[in-house]
Amino acid sequence: MTTRVAVNGYNVIGRRVADAVSLQPDMELVGVAKMKPDYKARSAVEKGYRVYCGDEKGEKAFREAGIPLAGFSKDLVSQSDVVIDATPEDIGSANKRMYESLGKKAIFQGGEEHDVAGTSFVAQCNYDSAINKDFVRVVSCNTTALCRVLHSIDESFQISKANVVIARRAADPDESSKGPIDAVVLDPVSIPSHHGPDVNTVLPNFPVISMAMKIPTTHMHLHSLIVSVKGTNPTDAQVVDKLSKTPRIMLVASKKDGIKSTANVMDLARELGRPRNDVFEAVVWRDSVKVIGSEIYFFMAVHQEAIVTPENVDAIRAITNSASATDSIRMTDKSLSILAK
Amino acid sequence: MTTRVAVNGYNVIGRRVADAVSLQPDMELVGVAKMKPDYKARSAVEKGYRVYCGDEKGEKAFREAGIPLAGFSKDLVSQSDVVIDATPEDIGSANKRMYESLGKKAIFQGGEEHDVAGTSFVAQCNYDSAINKDFVRVVSCNTTALCRVLHSIDESFQISKANVVIARRAADPDESSKGPIDAVVLDPVSIPSHHGPDVNTVLPNFPVISMAMKIPTTHMHLHSLIVSVKGTNPTDAQVVDKLSKTPRIMLVASKKDGIKSTANVMDLARELGRPRNDVFEAVVWRDSVKVIGSEIYFFMAVHQEAIVTPENVDAIRAITNSASATDSIRMTDKSLSILAK
Amino acid sequence: MTTRVAVNGYNVIGRRVADAVSLQPDMELVGVAKMKPDYKARSAVEKGYRVYCGDEKGEKAFREAGIPLAGFSKDLVSQSDVVIDATPEDIGSANKRMYESLGKKAIFQGGEEHDVAGTSFVAQCNYDSAINKDFVRVVSCNTTALCRVLHSIDESFQISKANVVIARRAADPDESSKGPIDAVVLDPVSIPSHHGPDVNTVLPNFPVISMAMKIPTTHMHLHSLIVSVKGTNPTDAQVVDKLSKTPRIMLVASKKDGIKSTANVMDLARELGRPRNDVFEAVVWRDSVKVIGSEIYFFMAVHQEAIVTPENVDAIRAITNSASATDSIRMTDKSLSILAK
Amino acid sequence: MTTRVAVNGYNVIGRRVADAVSLQPDMELVGVAKMKPDYKARSAVEKGYRVYCGDEKGEKAFREAGIPLAGFSKDLVSQSDVVIDATPEDIGSANKRMYESLGKKAIFQGGEEHDVAGTSFVAQCNYDSAINKDFVRVVSCNTTALCRVLHSIDESFQISKANVVIARRAADPDESSKGPIDAVVLDPVSIPSHHGPDVNTVLPNFPVISMAMKIPTTHMHLHSLIVSVKGTNPTDAQVVDKLSKTPRIMLVASKKDGIKSTANVMDLARELGRPRNDVFEAVVWRDSVKVIGSEIYFFMAVHQEAIVTPENVDAIRAITNSASATDSIRMTDKSLSILAK
Repeated sequence: MTTRVAVNGYNVIGRRVADAVSLQPDMELVGVAKMKPDYKARSAVEKGYRVYCGDEKGEKAFREAGIPLAGFSKDLVSQSDVVIDATPEDIGSANKRMYESLGKKAIFQGGEEHDVAGTSFVAQCNYDSAINKDFVRVVSCNTTALCRVLHSIDESFQISKANVVIARRAADPDESSKGPIDAVVLDPVSIPSHHGPDVNTVLPNFPVISMAMKIPTTHMHLHSLIVSVKGTNPTDAQVVDKLSKTPRIMLVASKKDGIKSTANVMDLARELGRPRNDVFEAVVWRDSVKVIGSEIYFFMAVHQEAIVTPENVDAIRAITNSASATDSIRMTDKSLSILAK
Repeated sequence: MTTRVAVNGYNVIGRRVADAVSLQPDMELVGVAKMKPDYKARSAVEKGYRVYCGDEKGEKAFREAGIPLAGFSKDLVSQSDVVIDATPEDIGSANKRMYESLGKKAIFQGGEEHDVAGTSFVAQCNYDSAINKDFVRVVSCNTTALCRVLHSIDESFQISKANVVIARRAADPDESSKGPIDAVVLDPVSIPSHHGPDVNTVLPNFPVISMAMKIPTTHMHLHSLIVSVKGTNPTDAQVVDKLSKTPRIMLVASKKDGIKSTANVMDLARELGRPRNDVFEAVVWRDSVKVIGSEIYFFMAVHQEAIVTPENVDAIRAITNSASATDSIRMTDKSLSILAK
Repeated sequence: MTTRVAVNGYNVIGRRVADAVSLQPDMELVGVAKMKPDYKARSAVEKGYRVYCGDEKGEKAFREAGIPLAGFSKDLVSQSDVVIDATPEDIGSANKRMYESLGKKAIFQGGEEHDVAGTSFVAQCNYDSAINKDFVRVVSCNTTALCRVLHSIDESFQISKANVVIARRAADPDESSKGPIDAVVLDPVSIPSHHGPDVNTVLPNFPVISMAMKIPTTHMHLHSLIVSVKGTNPTDAQVVDKLSKTPRIMLVASKKDGIKSTANVMDLARELGRPRNDVFEAVVWRDSVKVIGSEIYFFMAVHQEAIVTPENVDAIRAITNSASATDSIRMTDKSLSILAK
Repeated sequence: MTTRVAVNGYNVIGRRVADAVSLQPDMELVGVAKMKPDYKARSAVEKGYRVYCGDEKGEKAFREAGIPLAGFSKDLVSQSDVVIDATPEDIGSANKRMYESLGKKAIFQGGEEHDVAGTSFVAQCNYDSAINKDFVRVVSCNTTALCRVLHSIDESFQISKANVVIARRAADPDESSKGPIDAVVLDPVSIPSHHGPDVNTVLPNFPVISMAMKIPTTHMHLHSLIVSVKGTNPTDAQVVDKLSKTPRIMLVASKKDGIKSTANVMDLARELGRPRNDVFEAVVWRDSVKVIGSEIYFFMAVHQEAIVTPENVDAIRAITNSASATDSIRMTDKSLSILAK
C-alpha cells in the first residue's frame, strides 16, 4: 500500500524531503505547501508537484506571480496519510493542532522541542520507538550526526563520556541576511550547549558534553570529537573499521583523496552527481581518527541542509509501521545513492 | 562521424567539459588527463572515464592511490581528433607543441593569451571564424558573458561605448588557500582592466572599458554595466525583450522570483537540477534593466566555473567543421538543459 | 564661548563624535546617552564621560550592570546647546519633537530622511547653508565621500555626468548578525540606487547615477567612479593634483606604497596611530586615476564608521554660527590628525 | 643602563615590538630593518625610527620610493645589544649565524623551531630559564595563550590532562591573498596538532592534546578548552578567581558586557584606545567557565597579532639579566596599559 505524504514547508528541508519521497516506491507525494511564490515554488510546479498555500493572502500573491495553486495547506493535509512538517522553528508545534483535528500523523523537525512529539528519531538508533506513533520528531542535523557516530562507537567500545566542539556554519548558502562575516560568535557562551541534551532525546542518559560557536561559512558544521571509552582501548584501525560498517557514515581521506576541508566534501558531492550536491551521510575523516590512551579523537563534517533527508523518509515508514528499520534504511539509501553497508 | 575528444586537465573546466562531451551524440570522450590522484580522479574512474596522467612521477602516485590509469597524456592525445586543453594558466601554450607534433587540433582556455591560437571564440558571436582552424581559444568566463550581452545589445541598439565594473569572486568554492577573507582587492588598481581588450579578441574594436576588483565570495562574478547606445533610445522593455531572445542569457527577477543575490542564482541552479549546480548562461536581472537617456544599465552574474562549458563543446564542432553555428548551439544547449531561444 | 554638546546614541557614530567633540577647544561634551549597558557604556564611564539612559527600564539594566548613570536623555539634552542625534535609523526623527520642545538645536545622521532637517550637510560643499539653522542632517558615509570628490572635480573640470558603482561593506566589524557570508546581494536590484538622489540633497541637480550592492566585508565601501567632464579633457596628473589639494581626501598608491586593498587602507590607519583605526578621509587610489576621452575613472574607499565624524563637528559650529567654514574645517582636521590642505 | 635593541623584520610582530620597545625606560630602539619600501616603512620613518634594509637590491627600491635608509641590517645589528628577529618563518634560523658572528644576543619568534634557541619563553611561566642566555625563542601566539592559562590553572588545581580545539583565524587582516573564504580547513587533518608539543617547550611534560582547523576570519584564534584536574574539583567561581588574578589574562563577560564574539573583543580594544586595537592578553569568557565533574570548560580568544608583544619585551630583560620576572612584567604591562594583577 502506498503512503500518501504531504510536505508542509518547502524551504531547506521540505524541498529535499519532497524529492526523496517522490523516489520511494511505497510513497506518493500528494503535494507541497509554501507561503511565498518564488523561484522555489516555480520550480516545484515545473517538477510536476502540486503546490498549496497557507492562506488567502498567499493565494493572491501566487496568482499575481502566475504560479498555479492546487489549494490550501489544509486541503493538502486532508488528502494525505502523513505530514512532513518542515515549517520554520516553532511553527510546527502551532500546526500540530491542525494535524490532530484532521486525524493525521505528522513528522516534525529538530527546530521543534522534543515535547511536540514525545518521540525523537534517528533511524539507525531508535527506529522501533517510532512505530505506530502519531507524532515523531526528526532531530536536528548536528544531533543526527552525533547520534549516528556515538551510537556506533558505543556499540563496539562502550563510551564513558563524549566531548564535542561544534563549529557551526552561520547561515545556509542562500540565507544572505545572516552573519557573521568576519568573527567567531560563541553560541552560546555558556557551556554546555543544547546539543548534548538533544542527543539524550534519542539516546537517553548518554554522557555527551558539547560546546558550540558560529563561524563565517555556509557549508557544513564541523565537529571535533573527543570520546572516552570504558573497554579495552581500540586501535585507530578498529575504530575506522567500525565506522566504515555503520550506515550513513561516509569516510573520507586527506592523504589518499585530497579532502582537507568542508569545501572539498561539498565538491566531492558535486562529483558524485548528488542532487543539489547533498551529503546525506555524517562525514568522518578516516585519517583524523586517533586513539590516545582511552580516548578516541576525530573530525566530522555535517551537511546541515541534507543530513536529515533520509531520517524523514524512514520516519514515514516507522510511523505507519510499513517496513522494518533494516528494510526502510535499505530502501531509502538505495533511492538516494547512499552506499549500502 | 564521431569526433574523438581528449580532455587534458580535469579540474574546474575539464571535468565539466568532459561530462558535456559525453552527452553529445556526435562526440566520443576518449579520456581525461590529470596530474594528481584525488577524489576527482577517483570519481572520473567511477563514471567510466579512462584516466591518463602526465608523467612517470604521476603514474607512481596514481598506483599508490589505487586509481587505475589508461596511459600517459601523450597516448590520450594520439588517440583523439581534438584536444580540450583545460590545464592551468600558461601550461596550455607549453602543451601546444605536443599537439602540433602529433598533428592534433586543440582548444585552449581563456587563461592563455589570444596568440596561442590566433582565434578567440564565443559561439554566438564568431562561430564561423573558428571553422577548420587548428587552434581556437575559448575566452574566459567574464569575457564570454560580456561578449554575449554586448553583441546582443549592439545588434539591436548600436553600442557607442560600454563601461563595466566587475566584482570578481576571489576563489572557486574548493580553492581554500585563496583570499581575501574580509577586504576588497583592486585587481588591478590601474584602469582599464584586461577584460575590455579581451572582449576585442572576439569583437574587434568594440568600445569597452572595464574596472575590476576581487571580493570575498566563491560564487559568481558580478558585473555592473553601463552601455551607451547610438540609435534611438530603447525602452527598458525593448532591452529585456532583446536579451530574452538571445541564446545563453538567463533572465531572473527579484520581484517575481525573489532572486536578489548571486547565492539565490546558485540555489536556483540546484532547484533546476543542474549538474554540479552549474549555470551555463549569463544571468541578467530583468528588473535591473533601466534605460536613462541614451544609457542602458543592468546587473549581470557569471558562474565562473560553468559558463564556458557550452563554448568548448561548440568549438569542437567549429574546429572540425562538423555543424553550423545554429545547429551546434541547438545541440549543445539541448544536452545541457539550456532553454532554447 | 564654549558650545555644550550632547551625544544621543553611543554606537558607531556617537562614540566617535563624542571623542572628537572632547578634542575641540570650543566645545564641551556634556555627556552621552545610551540604551543598553555594555562594554561601550562601561568604557565611556572609564573615559570620564557622563552616561545617561533613555528610560526607567534602561536605568534598571545599568544599575544591575553596575554602570553609574548621570540621568536620563532628557536631562542630558536640557543641559546642552546642541544635540548630536546618533540614534539608529528613523529614531532620530522621532526624537526631533523632544529637541524642539526643549528648544535645542540638533544634528541628525544620514539614516534619517532629508526632510527631518531640510538642510543636508557636507562641510566643504555647503557649510554656509547650515549657519544658524535649528536642524541639520549630516549625510551618510557614501554620500559624504561622493560629495567631496565630485564637488572637487566639478570645480576644476565641470562634470556633465557621474556614474558610480558602490560595493558596500555588508556589516560593521562588530555587527555579527548581519550577512551575507558568501554572496553579492544587489541592494537594490533596481537602478538607480538612492545614493545619487542623496547627493542632490547637498549638491542640487548634480547629475549622478548610482548602482549599489552588498558584499561580504566589514571594512570600507568601495566606489568605482566614471565621471564625464564638459570642459577640456584634463590629464591624469591634473585630476590627481586637484584631488590632492582638496580637504579630507587621502590619496594612496599601490605602486609606491603597496596599498592594493581596503584591508591595506585600514592597516595604514593603524600605522598612523588613528584612534580606533579611523579613516576620516575619502580615500582615492592615485594610480587608479585615468582619463580616457572625456571621462575620468578612479577607485575610492570609504570608511563607513568614521568619515562623518568631522562633518558632525563642523555642523555644530555651523549651526551655532561659531566659526567660518575654513576655520572650522581647519580646527576639526587638526584635532583629528587629518592632513591640512 | 639602557639596552640597545634592533628589530629585524617590520611586519606583524616587528612593528608592534618596535613600538613597545620605544615605550620602555630601560631600552633604546636603535632602528628597524625591512625588506620592502611600503606604507609600513614610510610610517616607521614618520615615527622617527631609523630604517635599515637587507641588501643592495632593497636599497635601490627604497631610494626609488623616496624612503630614507639608515644603512643595512648588518649595520643595525652591529649597533645593538639585542636583536628581535621578527622575520618570516624559517628566515630567523638563517639569520642566527649573522647574530652569532657579530656576537649579539637574539630573540626569535614562534615560527622558528625550538632548537633555534634551545630556550622557549613565556614570561609568567619560565622567565628565569632565559636569564643570560644568548638566544631565546618567544613561542607562537596560540602557545603563549595556552601556557598562560594552563600554567595558572595547574598552580591551583593540578591539571591531569588538557584538551583544546583551536579554530584558527586563517589570515591576518591585511593578508588578502590567503583564504579560505567559505570553508573550514582541517589544519592538520591528523591529530594531535603541533600546539600541544609546542606548549611542552615551555612547560615540559605538560599533558596537552590539541586539534586545529583554519576558519574564514582575520581576527583572533578561538580556543575551546577541556581541562581535567586531579585535586578537589573547584567551583566555577574559584577558577574565575584564579584566572582573574593571573597576569596577562583578560576576563570578559557576555551577560554583563555584551561581549559574545571575537569581533566584540576587537571592538573593546578600540574603545580601550589600544594602539592598533591590540589585545595583549589571553581573553577568557568569564561566563563560559564551567566545572562539570573533574573537568573545567571554557572559551578563550587570542589576538594573533599582538599577544607576543609583551613577551618579546620581557625576553629582552631576561636575556640581558636586567630585571627580575616580576619587575619586568610590571614595567612592560604598565607601558602597554595591561591591567596589573
